[in-house]
Amino acid sequence: MLILGIDPGYAIVGYGVINYEANRFSVVEYGAVTTPAKMPFNRRIECIYDELSEIMQRTQVQAMSIEKLFYNTNAKTVIDVSQARGVIMLAAQKHNLEIAEYTPLQVKQSVVGYGRAEKKQVQEMTRVILKLDKIPKPDDTADALAMAICHAHTSGSLMGKLSKYK
Amino acid sequence: MLILGIDPGYAIVGYGVINYEANRFSVVEYGAVTTPAKMPFNRRIECIYDELSEIMQRTQVQAMSIEKLFYNTNAKTVIDVSQARGVIMLAAQKHNLEIAEYTPLQVKQSVVGYGRAEKKQVQEMTRVILKLDKIPKPDDTADALAMAICHAHTSGSLMGKLSKYK
Repeated sequence: MLILGIDPGYAIVGYGVINYEANRFSVVEYGAVTTPAKMPFNRRIECIYDELSEIMQRTQVQAMSIEKLFYNTNAKTVIDVSQARGVIMLAAQKHNLEIAEYTPLQVKQSVVGYGRAEKKQVQEMTRVILKLDKIPKPDDTADALAMAICHAHTSGSLMGKLSKYK
Repeated sequence: MLILGIDPGYAIVGYGVINYEANRFSVVEYGAVTTPAKMPFNRRIECIYDELSEIMQRTQVQAMSIEKLFYNTNAKTVIDVSQARGVIMLAAQKHNLEIAEYTPLQVKQSVVGYGRAEKKQVQEMTRVILKLDKIPKPDDTADALAMAICHAHTSGSLMGKLSKYK
């Protein structure tokens, strides 16, 4: 299964595409879509929509795993992050992707096995699981890859559970 | 100038298209895009994007006037309203519309001439300005028409000011 992990934002959107087959992970590509602060906001969200649409089209991912937002996220940015997240969800919907949302706690539990893990531990485990030489930069990209791993683990185990009842 | 006024939301998006020429208003159409609560959220924002895109295409509006959101809006809904607002902005951007944002205070001042006007007074003035028999329902639609009037007044006076310096 090809999974796109997303760390949502409007200045930096981290993304990572991984393949998960038979309990084995491989990395397809990762990076970040960035938009300059001086660009009008409507142009910024259009860039995010267009660039992510292009990645979805090119990599033919089947699922998107995206961080769930909470009201107690950064008060100054929550509205704009949410607006950007809306267009990211729309891009996934227009490409018929399965969309899954996870909290930071779920990601930590899934990647490190411990909900109170430090950010650095999550990044290091992400590097190990994906057999990368270094932790990808920026942090948004590492976080997006962790998001994708979380979905692989969760949907993998769900599929395992479901198959019992078939 | 053809102006689309928008009261953003995800369950109900009020809209109103007005024409403003030589200080005269006429109404083109108005209504609301509604999405059912039981529909998955990603489908809801896709419906909003598709229906508003269709209205923008069909009416050939030149500008969109949309309510500005604040963090102290309803805490429970601000994230989802913002996500829906993001796709509305994207639709406007994809149709090359001029996008203007106004606060409720600016709308009240522009429509009633008084920033502390009651909601009902704004609706009644909207009805009078647009020569409608009744206040449009739901409230979201009446609010969207007021938003469009606010942009007509504001951009009209701006154009007036600019022409002095030509």
